[in-house]
Amino acid sequence: MNAEQNKKVILTGDRPTGQLHLGHYVGSLANRVALQDEYNQFILLADIQALTDNYENPQKVRDNAYQVLLDYLAVGIDPHKSTIFLQSQIPQIAELTVLFMNLVTLSRLKRNPTVKAEMALRGFDESVPVGFLVYPVSQAADITIFKADLVPVGEDQAPMIEQTNELVRSFNRIYGPILKETTALIPKTGGRLIGTDGKAKMSKSLGNTIFLNESSDSLAKKVKGMYTDPTHLKVEDPGKIEGNTVFTYLDIFDPDTAEVTRLKEHYMRGGLGDSIVKKRLLDVLENFIAPIRTRRAELAQNMDYIENIAREGTLKARAVASQTMLEIRRGVKIDYFD
Amino acid sequence: MNAEQNKKVILTGDRPTGQLHLGHYVGSLANRVALQDEYNQFILLADIQALTDNYENPQKVRDNAYQVLLDYLAVGIDPHKSTIFLQSQIPQIAELTVLFMNLVTLSRLKRNPTVKAEMALRGFDESVPVGFLVYPVSQAADITIFKADLVPVGEDQAPMIEQTNELVRSFNRIYGPILKETTALIPKTGGRLIGTDGKAKMSKSLGNTIFLNESSDSLAKKVKGMYTDPTHLKVEDPGKIEGNTVFTYLDIFDPDTAEVTRLKEHYMRGGLGDSIVKKRLLDVLENFIAPIRTRRAELAQNMDYIENIAREGTLKARAVASQTMLEIRRGVKIDYFD
Repeated sequence: MNAEQNKKVILTGDRPTGQLHLGHYVGSLANRVALQDEYNQFILLADIQALTDNYENPQKVRDNAYQVLLDYLAVGIDPHKSTIFLQSQIPQIAELTVLFMNLVTLSRLKRNPTVKAEMALRGFDESVPVGFLVYPVSQAADITIFKADLVPVGEDQAPMIEQTNELVRSFNRIYGPILKETTALIPKTGGRLIGTDGKAKMSKSLGNTIFLNESSDSLAKKVKGMYTDPTHLKVEDPGKIEGNTVFTYLDIFDPDTAEVTRLKEHYMRGGLGDSIVKKRLLDVLENFIAPIRTRRAELAQNMDYIENIAREGTLKARAVASQTMLEIRRGVKIDYFD
Repeated sequence: MNAEQNKKVILTGDRPTGQLHLGHYVGSLANRVALQDEYNQFILLADIQALTDNYENPQKVRDNAYQVLLDYLAVGIDPHKSTIFLQSQIPQIAELTVLFMNLVTLSRLKRNPTVKAEMALRGFDESVPVGFLVYPVSQAADITIFKADLVPVGEDQAPMIEQTNELVRSFNRIYGPILKETTALIPKTGGRLIGTDGKAKMSKSLGNTIFLNESSDSLAKKVKGMYTDPTHLKVEDPGKIEGNTVFTYLDIFDPDTAEVTRLKEHYMRGGLGDSIVKKRLLDVLENFIAPIRTRRAELAQNMDYIENIAREGTLKARAVASQTMLEIRRGVKIDYFD
């Protein structure tokens, strides 16, 4: 416990709206596995945030919460090292959200570039659900209730961290030095994985994903259909590597980098067919996914164990949130019966 | 307990931002005293709502919470009949507020006439603090977490009830028949008391109040300075009753209606000086306020007792809110460990 207290705190998580895929692995899961020894890592199953744009479909969010948790464990997130918990079970987040809402103006929220981009994406204007508009405030509450030192984010999420720290500074100025400013942890490796169709982002809504528990058959079909170099029509033609999804994936997942370099040279020279490179990628991805798939299937046999991990993580997270809330209540002078 | 369950539920309350005055008595307190036998009445010390426009001054809100509670008890609100509680101590209200925010659009909130009027009053536009803009949503959570059948409001507050019921209908359509629509209870008697200066409303910010614990000296000064008929310069002149604050107050507070009628006739005829009428009003108000002032001073001797009333009421309110929240969590499919 003492060692844990000396570790820096990370807050991270996912909206449980679907099973996780290779894009999640590259973008965040691999980093979480790598960071969990060195940091006190809290991983939020952000079901309340998922409801902000899935409020009509609570069953979808519910169904996916434990599926995401299975994905976490299958890729090697260790519940003894990382605290995995359900946002909906931490009422202190809602309490802090309500207090934070007094410290931010409507115009400031609308100016948040991430909110702006996501509103444009969904075609929202003034008809935006208030919960959606306000989600950066809830996110600030997620982060600060756990006094997170670091939040791993993509570069496009930097404005969210800025908004959080603005709220922290306003809060502390008025109510005393209670909350902690946080820092964006922009991973050195990883980042955004392109989709199987070559589009900028692997995403369920674009239908260009490979799931972490993709079956062998389905994986074979997906790799076969992957985007390569559309001008590489005959085997003997020289092919392009840049923007070629198959080589992008090999660079990430193939441990034999020398062989990948050799294949690239051959492909650029001409004389190497797509089907050969795809066969290699299929082997590489099958080797990567097979143990995840097996572990996931084993874990899914015992959903009581999974539920128990969520429960234990939630209790631990709630204890931390309660402690911060005690300090908040004292600062806001609403510590009546504490 | 059973009898109580058969009673209809009323939800009412005040923002604790200052001591209560005769305007509060006429507008709401008298009705609360009258209604507490027949109804299961919840009275909210709305400290979280008070923070939406006093967030820079939490100590002011804190200082006033128990002062308002003292006023309640002094005018005859009975804590054994009415449940008096602190909003900040009911986290379920914040939880429901967050869920409700998904069910209302920004444009709908901005269209709320009460919000519009209050924003205009404070000179807010897009720079409105989000918490202030969102307060009708929090208010809807206050009302519905207690499944209130009735909410006593002035006519200008009717749009708030409409907004609440819209949220209830949306919520129930998506998550099942959990919440209850409410009804505005617009009091037959009472309503808005004009200020001592003749302005439309008695209000601390206008400096035209008579507090419920006004001292005799101060009361005398305030009555002496009251607005009458500015054209009634000489005693022998005929005077006007309409808009004459002193007669308005006599109509409300003087139990001897025959004598008030006689005084009015004399005043209109001419020959009755303001000072005589004011002397009568002073006697009437002193008779009204003296027992309140005495009871309040006695109660203030024992702040432990006052705190205990707040604690007991809060525990009772929290039990009701918890029960509703259980049902809400089941509906929203976030009943993980219940």
